[in-house]
Order: sequence, then structure tokens, then C-alpha cells
Amino acid sequence: MSGSSIGSIFRVTTFGESHGVALGVTVDGCPAGVPLDEKIIQKELNRRRPGAHAPTDADGKATGSFAYQDIGTLNPAGTARKESDACEILSGVFEGKTTGTPIAVVVRNENQRSADYGDIARAFRPGHADFSYQSKYGARDYRGGGRSSGRETLARVAAGAIAKALLATRGVSILAWTSEAAGVTCETFDADEIEKNDLRACDAEAAKKMRERVVELKARGDSAGGIVECRITGVPAGVGEPVFDKLDAELAKAMLSVGAIKGIEFGAGFESARMKGSEWNDPMRAGESGPQFLSNHAGGILGGISTGAEISFRVAVKPVPSISLPQKTIDADGVEREIEIHGRHDVCLCPRIVPVAEAMAAIVLADLLLRNRASRA
Amino acid sequence: MSGSSIGSIFRVTTFGESHGVALGVTVDGCPAGVPLDEKIIQKELNRRRPGAHAPTDADGKATGSFAYQDIGTLNPAGTARKESDACEILSGVFEGKTTGTPIAVVVRNENQRSADYGDIARAFRPGHADFSYQSKYGARDYRGGGRSSGRETLARVAAGAIAKALLATRGVSILAWTSEAAGVTCETFDADEIEKNDLRACDAEAAKKMRERVVELKARGDSAGGIVECRITGVPAGVGEPVFDKLDAELAKAMLSVGAIKGIEFGAGFESARMKGSEWNDPMRAGESGPQFLSNHAGGILGGISTGAEISFRVAVKPVPSISLPQKTIDADGVEREIEIHGRHDVCLCPRIVPVAEAMAAIVLADLLLRNRASRA
Amino acid sequence: MSGSSIGSIFRVTTFGESHGVALGVTVDGCPAGVPLDEKIIQKELNRRRPGAHAPTDADGKATGSFAYQDIGTLNPAGTARKESDACEILSGVFEGKTTGTPIAVVVRNENQRSADYGDIARAFRPGHADFSYQSKYGARDYRGGGRSSGRETLARVAAGAIAKALLATRGVSILAWTSEAAGVTCETFDADEIEKNDLRACDAEAAKKMRERVVELKARGDSAGGIVECRITGVPAGVGEPVFDKLDAELAKAMLSVGAIKGIEFGAGFESARMKGSEWNDPMRAGESGPQFLSNHAGGILGGISTGAEISFRVAVKPVPSISLPQKTIDADGVEREIEIHGRHDVCLCPRIVPVAEAMAAIVLADLLLRNRASRA
Amino acid sequence: MSGSSIGSIFRVTTFGESHGVALGVTVDGCPAGVPLDEKIIQKELNRRRPGAHAPTDADGKATGSFAYQDIGTLNPAGTARKESDACEILSGVFEGKTTGTPIAVVVRNENQRSADYGDIARAFRPGHADFSYQSKYGARDYRGGGRSSGRETLARVAAGAIAKALLATRGVSILAWTSEAAGVTCETFDADEIEKNDLRACDAEAAKKMRERVVELKARGDSAGGIVECRITGVPAGVGEPVFDKLDAELAKAMLSVGAIKGIEFGAGFESARMKGSEWNDPMRAGESGPQFLSNHAGGILGGISTGAEISFRVAVKPVPSISLPQKTIDADGVEREIEIHGRHDVCLCPRIVPVAEAMAAIVLADLLLRNRASRA
Repeated sequence: MSGSSIGSIFRVTTFGESHGVALGVTVDGCPAGVPLDEKIIQKELNRRRPGAHAPTDADGKATGSFAYQDIGTLNPAGTARKESDACEILSGVFEGKTTGTPIAVVVRNENQRSADYGDIARAFRPGHADFSYQSKYGARDYRGGGRSSGRETLARVAAGAIAKALLATRGVSILAWTSEAAGVTCETFDADEIEKNDLRACDAEAAKKMRERVVELKARGDSAGGIVECRITGVPAGVGEPVFDKLDAELAKAMLSVGAIKGIEFGAGFESARMKGSEWNDPMRAGESGPQFLSNHAGGILGGISTGAEISFRVAVKPVPSISLPQKTIDADGVEREIEIHGRHDVCLCPRIVPVAEAMAAIVLADLLLRNRASRA
Repeated sequence: MSGSSIGSIFRVTTFGESHGVALGVTVDGCPAGVPLDEKIIQKELNRRRPGAHAPTDADGKATGSFAYQDIGTLNPAGTARKESDACEILSGVFEGKTTGTPIAVVVRNENQRSADYGDIARAFRPGHADFSYQSKYGARDYRGGGRSSGRETLARVAAGAIAKALLATRGVSILAWTSEAAGVTCETFDADEIEKNDLRACDAEAAKKMRERVVELKARGDSAGGIVECRITGVPAGVGEPVFDKLDAELAKAMLSVGAIKGIEFGAGFESARMKGSEWNDPMRAGESGPQFLSNHAGGILGGISTGAEISFRVAVKPVPSISLPQKTIDADGVEREIEIHGRHDVCLCPRIVPVAEAMAAIVLADLLLRNRASRA
Repeated sequence: MSGSSIGSIFRVTTFGESHGVALGVTVDGCPAGVPLDEKIIQKELNRRRPGAHAPTDADGKATGSFAYQDIGTLNPAGTARKESDACEILSGVFEGKTTGTPIAVVVRNENQRSADYGDIARAFRPGHADFSYQSKYGARDYRGGGRSSGRETLARVAAGAIAKALLATRGVSILAWTSEAAGVTCETFDADEIEKNDLRACDAEAAKKMRERVVELKARGDSAGGIVECRITGVPAGVGEPVFDKLDAELAKAMLSVGAIKGIEFGAGFESARMKGSEWNDPMRAGESGPQFLSNHAGGILGGISTGAEISFRVAVKPVPSISLPQKTIDADGVEREIEIHGRHDVCLCPRIVPVAEAMAAIVLADLLLRNRASRA
Repeated sequence: MSGSSIGSIFRVTTFGESHGVALGVTVDGCPAGVPLDEKIIQKELNRRRPGAHAPTDADGKATGSFAYQDIGTLNPAGTARKESDACEILSGVFEGKTTGTPIAVVVRNENQRSADYGDIARAFRPGHADFSYQSKYGARDYRGGGRSSGRETLARVAAGAIAKALLATRGVSILAWTSEAAGVTCETFDADEIEKNDLRACDAEAAKKMRERVVELKARGDSAGGIVECRITGVPAGVGEPVFDKLDAELAKAMLSVGAIKGIEFGAGFESARMKGSEWNDPMRAGESGPQFLSNHAGGILGGISTGAEISFRVAVKPVPSISLPQKTIDADGVEREIEIHGRHDVCLCPRIVPVAEAMAAIVLADLLLRNRASRA
């Protein structure tokens, strides 16, 4: 089983390095007949693009006054990475629909030639995977993190767009947002607010405070972490494959496979540790359209199988490791060094993790929904 | 890919229902030459057995005064499930060593015939997988939870014992313990204490308080959750398969595949959300026996690959869903009901999750260590 | 991916050695609701059992006069292996139906303790896997061939019986027979004849000649090969997963995974090499119940996907390697030796390969039929 | 498990349609450190390219007088498909070596826009996969066969080139050739002859006769089948994963996954059916550099594991199904039709199957060699 693939039936394989020729993905096992074209994929890629998240006003227009890149993506000095990230479908789609054969999507890297890696080529950046890759493979593509770069998530988002297109035919929808960033927590939940602020927070007031903190951290050359939440609706009861490929187990794997994510909890999550059974158990009642749960501490999953209730989870996002403050490290020769990382870097990953988390959730659900077709004779 | 299997090379497949004929496991892909016999497996099974965890005094003798079953496993009224859980190796071992062929281990159920399931056969127990299994398969083995019973973890522990035997040949060791239970948190860490108290807590004082709370909850017919922590030492840098089969991703899947676990965090985990990059990044220095990390917020994993530092994670354990207090639910006909669950049930699962978490961690590590052999030409 | 498993959704894992404690199999991914009990499995196991194939007369009664074991299984001197091969279902079946959870089936070995392996423990038997196993694993269970013994096919036949039970709910049926053995070729095809003669040949006259040759070879201490054919009906058009998991590719793998099988051909097979396109292509016409093929050189498969026509293939069975004639070999120390293999051995494997080939075909079809459910949105 | 992937560790996933944007492949799991560039891959792609096989004289120069395309690829009338089939490596290679991350290779289609498919878009071509694809997916990319086109093998050959680069570091080499075509059988074996004649036959005399027959068939609008043989040297004893992923089982699957191949046999193959055990068994002797087999009826594989002897197999290649003679068929509406297929088509596929068979064998061996690293503790 190759490490760059995920899913059993709906099988996603990503490839590509940050500064290589291209990044891309193949999705094998997507059923025939799903409406798909490059626009559908591009729309999701644009949500993930650095600096591309222009917050919108109530009419959905970019406000212009409050640009995402201000707080992180763009180097104020100027030289931002301007990738159009335009995708091309190479196969698997014919006359506007999937054919059942593998769908390959490629995005070419435009800024392949970085000026000079100097230090970074030799020194192991703290908080990055430089040392662990070197240890594993005996060598590494040091340009921009190579395979371990967050840029790899671009391929996941493309695959997620395909998964979402399939899920849409089933009435399943996925929504993620930032619920905490740079120490600021959302107090209210307003779904309409999410795409309007540059943190993708669900609370306009909190979003403003988050932004202030982020700007402050950026000025200091530092970075911040946060929490992203996700909610999935429309999944019928019965999805998930015990005992190892449980719905929560697969979602946990998918989320933890994102470099910046360090934890996940479902429903009541870690708070479960402090609850009594009489509090935690979600009572059931007969609802109009089937059984209903009167609470949702289970996060919509029991025994690893969906219950029909909303699926909910939260992930912890670590602070961006690339900071311009001096850090202690060693280089490939084992010599102790101090390193400062300059260039175009995010300060807080949460707003970009939002589409990635949605994509990974979509991939998992697409796969488990297809697998569930084999549950009954 | 079948849901009852985990691992790519070291591949574990469990089978069996709580009240079926037997539970068991096959481990395919264990290399030849690992010393193994039934005693090695039985020892781990005994750690997981209900009521079997007799805390020991300083000399390692059972104290007798402080029986684990008092607080949970045994019904004070008497009719405890007394399973010897004796295992039998059916294949894959010859002359005291693994042969490289599949190792099958079986434990027969002794108390197959439960008196009368009555209510439980029809009503969906809150917090259990009754409804989700019914929804998925159109029918279910309702005897003691069938496949979704915690008893299935017995097969995991057997496989974990085999994985541990393999890891022992590589110098890898795994230790788990209860760090919080029933609202009581450990303040100190004493590894020697863990197997001496019936909560498997790492702090003797906290263990006493936990016990008091658990006894209290039991008296009320309620239950409690907790936190289990795990630490893995001896793993060389380089283990884990990007980008999806990362070490933390695989551990997260393995842990979340345990029914009672609702969350996981690595290293600084959810606390990462509130940290700055300058705090989070673990600086590196040249150590005597190779590179060293001056802190371990990463939990020993960067980019999904081990760094050589200690691997650490924490999991959230939900309260036992079987409680004797009345609960609202519906039955298979959609009729609303009230249910009380009597019988032999744990109050807090933490002490039994400890060997299960170790087993799952061992299975993941065994697999990824073998997969890592293919990293270099 | 472990070598002792086959299938993606309907996933079969076998375990066990010839003279170990038991052989068995787990089938994970069998849909819920398939009628199943031990009798259904035992019936197929009995077909494969050494000496168990008592040919029957027109009324289905054992004729007694023409025992299979006369020609191969029983050592005329007497000490035949009398295994009842009684199976036990350990899990996955509840109230007479599959539950969707893993089905484990075990058959205990009765004659575990073989007197004395002496020579065989040290010398590599020609035509057997002794040397290759030793080379791979550095050691081997030499008792009766261990894992490489033909006895392992017992577990396949048990899994095949489960697959057949599933296929029966879909109207798929599989028939295999001996078409050539010991140099004698069947001239006619009579399906009713197959289970009536001890070679499972499709031609009563040929069966008699085959038997004569086999008795003769046995007297000389030699053995014979043959050809087994298989035909599968009721498979709808559309089954098979391009481009690698094609129906013929999966069947080829499944058949070649049987130790004694050295070749396979579909439809016109090797004869295709001498045909012209104008001869080979099967013309299509509109039939009453859908499209019809006017010939079947394709063997019911085009582009690796079933066409709805009968699926047909033939496999080459090598002569039994265990012969009592003296053979040149070496032992584990590299010393040259001469070896004679005495004991209970078949002379021609064809009649026992028949149920094994059916089982493997059933496993492949069950899996691909389930996988095909994901072909369309 | 997706059907467009093969291999467990060395995992190959192909994508692309005959007349889509591009064909390509990802190879995940290739170890780091293997020397690789586009030239190495292009060389193998050129061997497979239609019309590209220019036979060479003794000095390795193209003779010019005896062009491959004369007999099959080029339509004498002129409009040949002139694809340069230039490959581009998108990822996984850095500074001339593999990095251990997925290697993606893409070949863009140059002649995407075919004039007019008319008949072919509606009618099912006999001997092609048109009907079976339509049945499976409910629609199909009819342009040049879409995914079922032989052009898909281009991606396999690219992956095979990578596998060969890995195998070269281990001393494993693979050689395939045409041993029979259009009814003409090679009588001698001369390895140097293979790449010098346009049938890739191992016998210069036979090659001439084959060519005459092929030219004759082409003139008549017909086509021919043949036999391709393959021999693998340098594989150490111990490679192959019992009991299902045996070396011969995996090779059989890989070969039968090639559309034109209808059968395979190893070593003595179908001839085994007529042999006695005393003839078939390969005796062993002590050789200078380890154990030796005095014959090779086993084809270098016993119990599914390599013995160290040369691995040998033969595959049956069906005649090219695209012929210009009139054929009976039906169209997508079930209406009976007559069809003639004009255009650029091969007459006999054998010379192009040769590099494809080598590629598939290389992929299987690369994977099983890596898997074998896990055999011993």
C-alpha cells in the first residue's frame, strides 16, 4: 500500500513537490456519471490559494478593504508567490461527466526556480519535516519543503472537489470553519460569515480580533495556531466499516495526515473524559423522518458507523513553523546553527486548512459511502 | 479492503462477536524468526481481562485489598463474567518462532448463552452501536453488543502482543497509563505505579481519589470517562509513510478505531492552537548519540515521520455507555422506550484501554517499521 | 498487503499448516443476509477431502465399486490419512444468516503428530516448495509441507463455499471438471458424469482410461498431470475492474495461486496465437434477452470485463511431486542426497483441483460483483 | 482497491484515454536513490511506439529497408498516427535520483481530435471492449477505444522503465521476444536477433516468414496472433508472497491485465498435463555458487517463490481485433449492423507486446523484491 494514496474504492493518489514541475492527483474509482469539469475543481483550488481568499460583503463581492494576504500570505516587502494554480483534467471525464476511469488532475508550478536555498538546503528548519525526510530517504528535495510542503494539499483539494461532486449527488454537504485562532475564540456561529472574513471564522467580532493578533504576530516575525471545526450533514445512518475502518477512524487518519494538524476530537471529544455516562449518552426519540437523537455527544458516530445525526469534529492546527525569528538547529553535517526563515509565509494556517479539511472529509465520505454499498446482500 | 483488517505488511484481521463461539485474530506478514508462544500472548490478554487486573504491592504481589473488579467489572451482587480468555495459537509458529506465515490466535467464549436479552434485543441502547449496526446491516447480533462489543479488543491485544514481540527485537517499547479518570487528574508521573493501582494511573494519590469517585458512581448506577496517555521509545528517525500513511495519521486511525475513544492529540496537541511558532517549534542541538530536540511539542513526529524523539499522544475515553439509570430510547419498531441496563459492566474503561492502546500502537509501529525497509534502494 | 489474503471487498485470509493445530479462513466483507451454516461449507469441504470423493450412480448414491482413494489417496499398504475435516464457524453468522462481520471458519488437524520426518526435515523434495520456503524465511515447518501443503486449499474451499452462497443469491453458478488426465483427453462433455467418476472427468469412457493409467502409475511409484476446465454462467455484463483488476487477470492470479497449477488460458487461449482476427472476433447479434455473441473465443471477457457470455478457462495441473521413485536432491547443508517419498499421496490432483478451482473462481466473482456496485453514481 | 493500480509497495497507477488530453502513471513506493531521468523512460517508450521499431543491423543502426510500420502500424495509404510520445517526469526525481516520493510521468496525446467517429461511436466493435465498457459504466469514451485502448500500455511501459531502473541496482534483468507469430514458430533462439527484426522474433529466418504472412494478412484486411516469451534472470531464491501473492500468480495477473493476452504458462506449462512426476520434478545438485536445478520445468518458481533458477513464461497474444473486413455487430440501440474498421492499425501485436510484457514483469518483480525485505525479523 503506497503512502501517497487514500481510500479503498474512491482512491486518491497525490504526487508532486512544492518546487517541482507540477502537483497533481489521480482519483480512481469515482463512479461514472458524475457531472465534472475544470471549473468545479478550480473553484475549490481558489479557496485554498495563498492570498486568494478575498473576503466578501453581503452581496458576495470582494470587499477589497480587508485582504487576506495582508495578514500573512504576502510578504509586505512585496515578492509574493503568485501562482494561478490553474488545474487541467487529463483523463476520466468525457462529455462533462466522469467515465468511471481514473481522473487525473494536474497543476503546474509556475515559480519552480527559487533564487537560492542556501541555508535551507543544509539546515533543518525547526517544526518542519526536513530532518525526518532526510532520515527516512537519505536525501530530500529541499526546495520549499519538497513533498512535505503544505502545497501538497492542493492535490487533496482537487480530489476533494471531485468527492464533493459525487457527494452532492447524494445530498451530503460539508462545512468547515475557524473557531479559534491566535488565542481568540468564536463566541457565536454564523455560517454566512465564514467566507466573508479572512480567517474564515464563524463570528465576525472574533474575526476582527483574530486579525489584529495575526497582524501583530506577523510584525514580530512570529506565527499562530488555531482550531478548525467541521460539520457534515446528509450522511445516512450506516456509513463506516468496523472494526478498523470506522468512520471516525478514517476521518482521524485523513485529518492527521495534514501536516499542520496535531489533534482531533469528535462530538464531545476530550470533554467526554469529564462526563458521566448519564450525561454523555445521547437519548433517542422517534422523529418525523425517522429516529432522532436528543443530543449529539457522539458527533454522529456510534461504533464507528454514522447514526444519521450531524457528524462533527474539531482539529487542532499548530502555528506555522516558518518564522523569521532566530531559531536553534543543526545542519546536515550535524553542526549547530541559528536560522531565520524569510520569505512569503502564512502566519496562521486556519483559513487555508478550512478547504483542506473539507476536502479530506469529502474523500473519506465518498469512499465509505461507496464501500457501504456492499453491506447487504 | 476489508474493515476488519489493519496494516499493510504486518496485517492484522480480527473476527468474533461478544457472545459468539470465539474471538480471534490472524496476523499475516510477521517476519520469520520472532520468538513467540502462547504465554507471551496470554500475558497481555490477562492485562485486558475484566477483573483480572489485581494491583500489586512494591514486590509485585497482588495486594488483594484493592480489587479492580470492586469498582467496575464485577457486579457486587455476584454474577461476574468469569472468562479465562485462554488463547490458542493455531498456526504460524514452529519450534518457538514465527515462520513468516499467518499467525492465527483464537480465544473461545465460555459464556456464550446469555440468559435472556429481552429488551436489549429490541431496544437500541443509548451510547452503544445498536442502532448504527442495525442501520448498516439490516440486522445485528444483539447478544452483548455482538461485533461492536468491547470484547473485540481482546483480539487486538493478542495481535498487539505479537507486534510487541517483533518490536522488542528492535528495541522499541510502548507504555500507556491513565492520566485522568472520573474528573481526577494525575499530578505526578511514576511509571512503577501504573500496574499497581486498579485505574492504571501514574500517580498513587490520584489513583485513590479516582477509585473513590468510581465507587461512588457505581453506587449511583452511573459511569465515568478519562484520559489515557501513551509514550513510545526506541523508534528511530524515519518511520512513517507520507503523505497519507503518516505515523500520526496511522496512530490516530488505530486509536479512533477503539470504540470508546473520541479524540487524540500528539505532543502539544490542542494546546498548539494557543501557542506561537516561536514557542511550538522544537529547537535542535547536536547530541552525543545524534541530533537532539530541546523540547517535544511535535510528539516525536514531523511531517508524519518519526524524528527519533519520544512519541507521545493522549486519547479521550468516553464514559461507559452501559448504565443502570433509566434512559430514553426507541426500539427496532421505532417505538419510544425507557431502558435500564443491568449486569456486569465497567464503570470506567481507562484501565482496560491501557493495554488496548499499547496493542494498537504496537501494531501500527510494527507495520510502519517494516514498510520503512523499502524507503531506500 | 499480506500474501495470505485475496479480494478487495470480499476479502479472504487463510491460515494454517498441514500438520499444525488447525487450518482456517476469515472472510471479511461478505454482505449481511446471506443464508449460511456449517453444512453448506462442509459439503464443499467433503468434495475436496482426500479419499472422500465416492463416485455416485445415477441416483446420487455412492457406488462403492470405484473408490477414489484406490487410485491415489490411500496408500495400498493401509495407513491413509483419515481426516474428517469437520469445519466450525466461529463468527459472522447469526440466526442462519451472515451478519456482515468477518466469518471465521476453522478445521482442526487430527493427525498433527507425524511419526518421523527424518529425511524430509532435512532434504529438499524435488518439485516441492521446501527449498524456496527455506530460502525465503530462513526456516520452515517441514511437517507435511507446512504452509505450502496442498492441504491449505481446504481453507480456500471453505471460503469458496461462502462465496458460492453469495453468488447463488445472484444466479451465478460455477462448474469445473477434469478434461484431461494422465495423457487421456475427454472427447465428450456430460455435466452429469463429472461427480460420478473418481477423476471428475466429463466423459465416462475417458474416465475409465484415466483410471487405468493412474493405477498403473501408482504401481510404478509415479504420478500424472492433467487439465481442469471451468465454466461460469449467470455473470451479467460489466463485471471486472480495468485496467489491472480485470476479470481474467484476477481469475488468472487466483488460479495460479494454487500450487499445482502452471498455466491458464481463457476462451480460445493459446490457440488464439494461430487465429486470424476475422476468425477470432466474436460477432454480435440482437438476442431475445439482450445482445448475443455468435461464438466465444473471448471466453466471456473483453477488455477485462464480462460480456454476459459464459466465462470459460482451462488450467494446467502439474503431476503430483511426491513420488516414491528415487530422486536427486540436496539437503539443508547443501549435501547431495537421493530421496524417496513414501506415504499417502495422490497420483493425479485433477479431481481435487476441481472444487479448489471452483472455490477460487467463486471468490474472485464474489469480490468483483461487489466491486462493480461502485461503477455508476 | 482501485482497478487502475498494481503492486503493494512499488505501486503503479495508470490513467488516461487513447484520445484524451494525456496518458500517464504514478509510481509510489519506489525507494529513494535510484538513478532516473526522462531519457531512461523515453527509451522504453520508444520501443513500444507504433512504427518506431526500426530494426537495426549488426552495428545497431536502423537498416531502413525493413520498416516495422510497413507491416502493420502505418496505413499504406498514408495517414499514420505520428505520436512522438515524449514523456515528462512531473515529480519524485531530484538531482538525477528518485526521492522516495511518487514519481509521476505524463505523455500528452498529440492527435486528440479525431475527425469523425461516426459508426464507431455507436456500434460495438467485435473483439473490442466497447460493449463491456458500455455495460459496466453506462457510457464510454468511444474515441479510439478510450481507456480500453492498447495505448494505455504506454503508461505501463513508463512504469516498467522505472521498475527496470530499480531492478538494475539488484542485478535483475528481463528479456522478452516473439516466439511465434501468424502461424510461424521460431526454431532457434538468438537473443541478439530480437531487436533487429520487426517482429522482435528470436530467429531471423522465422522473422522473415512471419513478415511475409503479416504483409499478406494486411493486404487482405485481416490480422494475426502469436506467442511472446519472457525470461527473467538474477532473481534470488525467496521472492514471492504465499499463498495468494505468489510470484507466478502476480505475474499471471500482470500479464492477463494486458488486453491482448489470453493465456499464460510457466516453465513446462500446459505440457505439464502430459508429464509424469518423475519427468517433471527438477532434480537439485550442489552447484559452485549454491544449489542448482538440473532442469527447469518449474520455470524458476516453486510454491509461488523464486528458486533462484531462471524464471520463464509464455503468453498467448490474440489477433488484433481491428480488421477492415466486414463484421457483424450491434449498436448501442441493439440494432444489428455490419462494420468495417479502417485506419491505422497493427496487424500483429507481438512486437509491441514484447516491451509491455517486460514492463509488467519488471513491475511485479520490483514490488515482490521490496515485499521480500519483510520476510525475516
